[in-house]
Amino acid sequence: MKALVYHGPGQKAWEDVPDPKIEDPNDVIVKVETTTICGSDLHILKGDVPTVTDGRVLGHEAVGTIVEVGAGVAKFKVGQRVVVNCITTCGTCNYCRIGAPSHCQSAGGIGWLLGHLVNGTQAEYVRIPFGETSLHSIPSALTDEEVIFISDIIPTGYEMGVLNGQVRPGDDVVVIGAGPVGLSAMVTAQFMGPRTVTAVDLDPYRLEAAKRDFGATHAVNSGDADWMDQIRAITKNGGPDVIMEAVGIPQTLESAFQLIRPTGRIANIGVHGKPVTMPIDELWIQNITVTMGLVNGTSAPTLIDLIDSGKLNVKPLATHKFSLDQMLEAYEVFGNAGKNNALKVVLSA
Amino acid sequence: MKALVYHGPGQKAWEDVPDPKIEDPNDVIVKVETTTICGSDLHILKGDVPTVTDGRVLGHEAVGTIVEVGAGVAKFKVGQRVVVNCITTCGTCNYCRIGAPSHCQSAGGIGWLLGHLVNGTQAEYVRIPFGETSLHSIPSALTDEEVIFISDIIPTGYEMGVLNGQVRPGDDVVVIGAGPVGLSAMVTAQFMGPRTVTAVDLDPYRLEAAKRDFGATHAVNSGDADWMDQIRAITKNGGPDVIMEAVGIPQTLESAFQLIRPTGRIANIGVHGKPVTMPIDELWIQNITVTMGLVNGTSAPTLIDLIDSGKLNVKPLATHKFSLDQMLEAYEVFGNAGKNNALKVVLSA
Amino acid sequence: MKALVYHGPGQKAWEDVPDPKIEDPNDVIVKVETTTICGSDLHILKGDVPTVTDGRVLGHEAVGTIVEVGAGVAKFKVGQRVVVNCITTCGTCNYCRIGAPSHCQSAGGIGWLLGHLVNGTQAEYVRIPFGETSLHSIPSALTDEEVIFISDIIPTGYEMGVLNGQVRPGDDVVVIGAGPVGLSAMVTAQFMGPRTVTAVDLDPYRLEAAKRDFGATHAVNSGDADWMDQIRAITKNGGPDVIMEAVGIPQTLESAFQLIRPTGRIANIGVHGKPVTMPIDELWIQNITVTMGLVNGTSAPTLIDLIDSGKLNVKPLATHKFSLDQMLEAYEVFGNAGKNNALKVVLSA
Amino acid sequence: MKALVYHGPGQKAWEDVPDPKIEDPNDVIVKVETTTICGSDLHILKGDVPTVTDGRVLGHEAVGTIVEVGAGVAKFKVGQRVVVNCITTCGTCNYCRIGAPSHCQSAGGIGWLLGHLVNGTQAEYVRIPFGETSLHSIPSALTDEEVIFISDIIPTGYEMGVLNGQVRPGDDVVVIGAGPVGLSAMVTAQFMGPRTVTAVDLDPYRLEAAKRDFGATHAVNSGDADWMDQIRAITKNGGPDVIMEAVGIPQTLESAFQLIRPTGRIANIGVHGKPVTMPIDELWIQNITVTMGLVNGTSAPTLIDLIDSGKLNVKPLATHKFSLDQMLEAYEVFGNAGKNNALKVVLSA
Repeated sequence: MKALVYHGPGQKAWEDVPDPKIEDPNDVIVKVETTTICGSDLHILKGDVPTVTDGRVLGHEAVGTIVEVGAGVAKFKVGQRVVVNCITTCGTCNYCRIGAPSHCQSAGGIGWLLGHLVNGTQAEYVRIPFGETSLHSIPSALTDEEVIFISDIIPTGYEMGVLNGQVRPGDDVVVIGAGPVGLSAMVTAQFMGPRTVTAVDLDPYRLEAAKRDFGATHAVNSGDADWMDQIRAITKNGGPDVIMEAVGIPQTLESAFQLIRPTGRIANIGVHGKPVTMPIDELWIQNITVTMGLVNGTSAPTLIDLIDSGKLNVKPLATHKFSLDQMLEAYEVFGNAGKNNALKVVLSA
Repeated sequence: MKALVYHGPGQKAWEDVPDPKIEDPNDVIVKVETTTICGSDLHILKGDVPTVTDGRVLGHEAVGTIVEVGAGVAKFKVGQRVVVNCITTCGTCNYCRIGAPSHCQSAGGIGWLLGHLVNGTQAEYVRIPFGETSLHSIPSALTDEEVIFISDIIPTGYEMGVLNGQVRPGDDVVVIGAGPVGLSAMVTAQFMGPRTVTAVDLDPYRLEAAKRDFGATHAVNSGDADWMDQIRAITKNGGPDVIMEAVGIPQTLESAFQLIRPTGRIANIGVHGKPVTMPIDELWIQNITVTMGLVNGTSAPTLIDLIDSGKLNVKPLATHKFSLDQMLEAYEVFGNAGKNNALKVVLSA
Repeated sequence: MKALVYHGPGQKAWEDVPDPKIEDPNDVIVKVETTTICGSDLHILKGDVPTVTDGRVLGHEAVGTIVEVGAGVAKFKVGQRVVVNCITTCGTCNYCRIGAPSHCQSAGGIGWLLGHLVNGTQAEYVRIPFGETSLHSIPSALTDEEVIFISDIIPTGYEMGVLNGQVRPGDDVVVIGAGPVGLSAMVTAQFMGPRTVTAVDLDPYRLEAAKRDFGATHAVNSGDADWMDQIRAITKNGGPDVIMEAVGIPQTLESAFQLIRPTGRIANIGVHGKPVTMPIDELWIQNITVTMGLVNGTSAPTLIDLIDSGKLNVKPLATHKFSLDQMLEAYEVFGNAGKNNALKVVLSA
Repeated sequence: MKALVYHGPGQKAWEDVPDPKIEDPNDVIVKVETTTICGSDLHILKGDVPTVTDGRVLGHEAVGTIVEVGAGVAKFKVGQRVVVNCITTCGTCNYCRIGAPSHCQSAGGIGWLLGHLVNGTQAEYVRIPFGETSLHSIPSALTDEEVIFISDIIPTGYEMGVLNGQVRPGDDVVVIGAGPVGLSAMVTAQFMGPRTVTAVDLDPYRLEAAKRDFGATHAVNSGDADWMDQIRAITKNGGPDVIMEAVGIPQTLESAFQLIRPTGRIANIGVHGKPVTMPIDELWIQNITVTMGLVNGTSAPTLIDLIDSGKLNVKPLATHKFSLDQMLEAYEVFGNAGKNNALKVVLSA
């Protein structure tokens, strides 16, 4: 089959590799019908994730059809349409049992296997370990494009942003970063009845999208000298109740430390490469909560239900569409997302 | 009356000052029968709290008897015995209404008034603003000494440590710092069914007290080179479920960042004077929660009930006893707590 | 002043009574600018509430302007516009402190005083005991009509229905009874991200209103022989996750016992006059939760914020409008609500 | 092998049956080393559970050693010691995923399979479907007797009583029924810091055991005419905060409806055979919560940890001990538990 293979920093190819096979009774083989590219794939290609080695098929997001199941798989049948959970979930370890497969012990304490420690979804076929608990069935009425983002970014925004941030009715919510994950946080924040949702970004195109398609009630350009004061003016209590960081650099998280109101919550969603300075000398008295973490995907069934019932529409994330064998072209577009006004690229077989 | 008056950094006196008077219909005047000294009083005397000005009577902890009530006070009568909440609570502002009087708006956004912005409890009499919601009645069977620590440190350890840390049955809990507040956190952690409670400190006397009187199941001396490994060995999941920081310096909080297990919670209790470095580049993936804040005192009625029913015994905190007019001597002992093996000093009229 | 006075079962008059006066330092006198009539007022008039005695001014809902405050009232000033909380809240008793003023001890264990144990709001002026904690200020941009239902029915539907029912994203919610309180539950359920909200009633007019103005996604007429099967067909799990009972008769609550799915929640909102049979022999194994209670009004500030920000619109509840001195006519219309297609009547000075 | 086989109402035999075999890749075969008898086994023998058919091996509680695993089982190995969860848990259906395997869809909506719909644990060997998620590993230091009650009654008391009842620090808790499940609720209630735990029963022997071994602070004999007043006098708020019903007859649950204080919680644990009358006409205004359900066993790992760390001791439940082939004798003793002062019988191979 064809697959997007990593060959060391800066090196990738769309090339022939052996088809995946059942290796364990709990494996499921899925024919990939739709996939996408994630910011972390770009990080891998920069060489930022040394645990990814030469020869690895990338990708951890896919919708497809089951073509083979291992002997231990009772829940799924060949021919069923499924969406892949980016976090492989054994379902039986201590972490999976408390709803935290992001730290699944069956794979050495990390649930992110696909396109990382095992071959991934940017391929014609993919082997899904622990398939019963790592795949979600899809209502027949839904298209691939409507559910592809359930693999990762919608649950990431919802679980690490909205749920960790404990958004409650009446809250003033700020999301710093209007990229795909930030927009996912905005659009799912609506399920908690916020008073306002303010998108913050440097890119006017993304701010516009945030308001048009993702439920932001306000947008603030963080290039403005007074952007923090603009935010404070929007809130009813002098500062946000919840701030979600969806960028991953020290400045944005440190801004959140400055902006948050007493009793507020800061939910980090971004992937960070550097430490931050936390002004605990000012914050110790503020009664705030700071959370951070890798998505679990445990919310996926609920989010699929909400898409199915028309309550959640994430199709506007898919700004650019390709066929599967246009993989390199899709990487080119997504790798220059700003220039291309790209949010997410979608590749379909 | 006599009172302990602050006269600028390093300057204090036990001297005559005018008796307090009702200034507002919601005021209550309390005759102080028992008081104590807090670490923050020592901070004030070092000049670390510039909002405290020359002439201020210090102290925010007291048990006493009501001698006068304002016209708006219906709940309390002259002659009732009460314990003072260190956080003055108007009961009607947005923060008080959500259970966060630490940020009470009636006093400009800070609930800590006594011995800070208004005259305090290290005196023969004290005026308590918003008395109905800032005083707690005491069951007649309880002595002053049994409830004096309800003013501040027991709720501080319980609310900022145990409740914020969300201690649950079966948890491995670590409390860094076995001073009065850390010990308060340990002894109230018992109400949540932890598997282990490990006290961490440099002082063997305090570690011994932690195990003998405050419910610690284990003690680790952080002077040992391998102290973190000792802690890891005690836990069942390779690291604590909950770490409470009760010291207030960067090293201890940064140790907590290193020690916490994935999905764990870090509850800061300490008062900090410097920023810390948070290794968000390592922690972003750990699914942890970090909390911090000033005590509210909202748990005081529950804690009094638990003392009254014999479930909570905090008397071992009172290691040294004085009469009220031995105030300067008490400061001397408490100011050198380590040398004197002092936890808390108690002064009674 | 003029007021609607109860003179025993079936007897009422719009007549002259003395103006209310400050009786306690915590009292506030409000000039009533807008009021309404509640189903419980009709119950009183039928003689169903024997604690209401001859001479009582009825009514527990109002928007108005403060004309006098007692000596203990610091939060409010003469001239401020406020909405009355139907539950009088001392703010200092054990129940008020845990957010349950419905059982406020300062009035003998019942928070419903207005138009019940003290004179109420269907009058030109009303005395509000414990005014600081029993009145809510109103943003200046909001009209009386936009907030009058904050006095009672919106918080009743939200607190006793939506919050007690623990509505969560993706839930299938059923509200039995599309009267004013049921509609309030429907429209506030939106803040929790339900998958569906199904209105159930016998009255096609109310079902239509539920879908048009109050966020119901489906409507089922309980006069249909197969109404329960219609509901089951709407849900994704064979039965509702949450059922709210907003009628107050045994049949509807017993229907809820039949319809609820395992792990579901039944939130009773209705006022009942007869016991029900609970089939515990069938339900003990179903892992369900049943809640019931009197509104507290603690959610009022949040709900006002949501109205102010345009997220909550309850004006369609006001189907009929009168001047204050058309009180008897308004009672006539509301007393025959079905015939008049009336939801709520609004009376303005 | 030998097994206790049901042959219709009143008919049972300890007889030879075929050894269980792996039927599904997720099956595990366990050699039973310790088992016990449950009240529900007696119900089956009375003919009260018609879904149990002639030829069924009874029993749903066991500790033993794994002798064979299916091809899909990765978590467990032959030779491991395990305790059986009375609820068979597929781990992948909608109910299992939300922590409610009591309604596991893989077995038609009921998680209670063992000794009910498939052969059970009162035998020399037992087949455990979905073994990876239906068995719990045991720390080597623990004896069979220390963990046998983890199969059912300890989690039943803890999950359906303590967790559903939301016991909080300072609560006054009442447990009606001091049989094995009621005692399990009492001893695990300690993990939530109650102010008092009052045992209620007609049997002085059980009340004495409750106080001696299971953490009850008070005991009330419900044969006393004034037993309800005795309970009210123990509580600080005129009634219990939490009542757990662990009997299963209308009178006891109806007593709970009478006794509960406003804002309290009633947690039904008992198995009921008849409907009850719920006085909703009195309770609608009381702001109470009523819960009921079948155990899930999801708390078992935590409870095992607490036993292992010495925080939970349930050995006093084992009042009578037998060898496995004394099965009929053990039934005789347990079937007349009151006369024999028996709590639980333990049978070991």
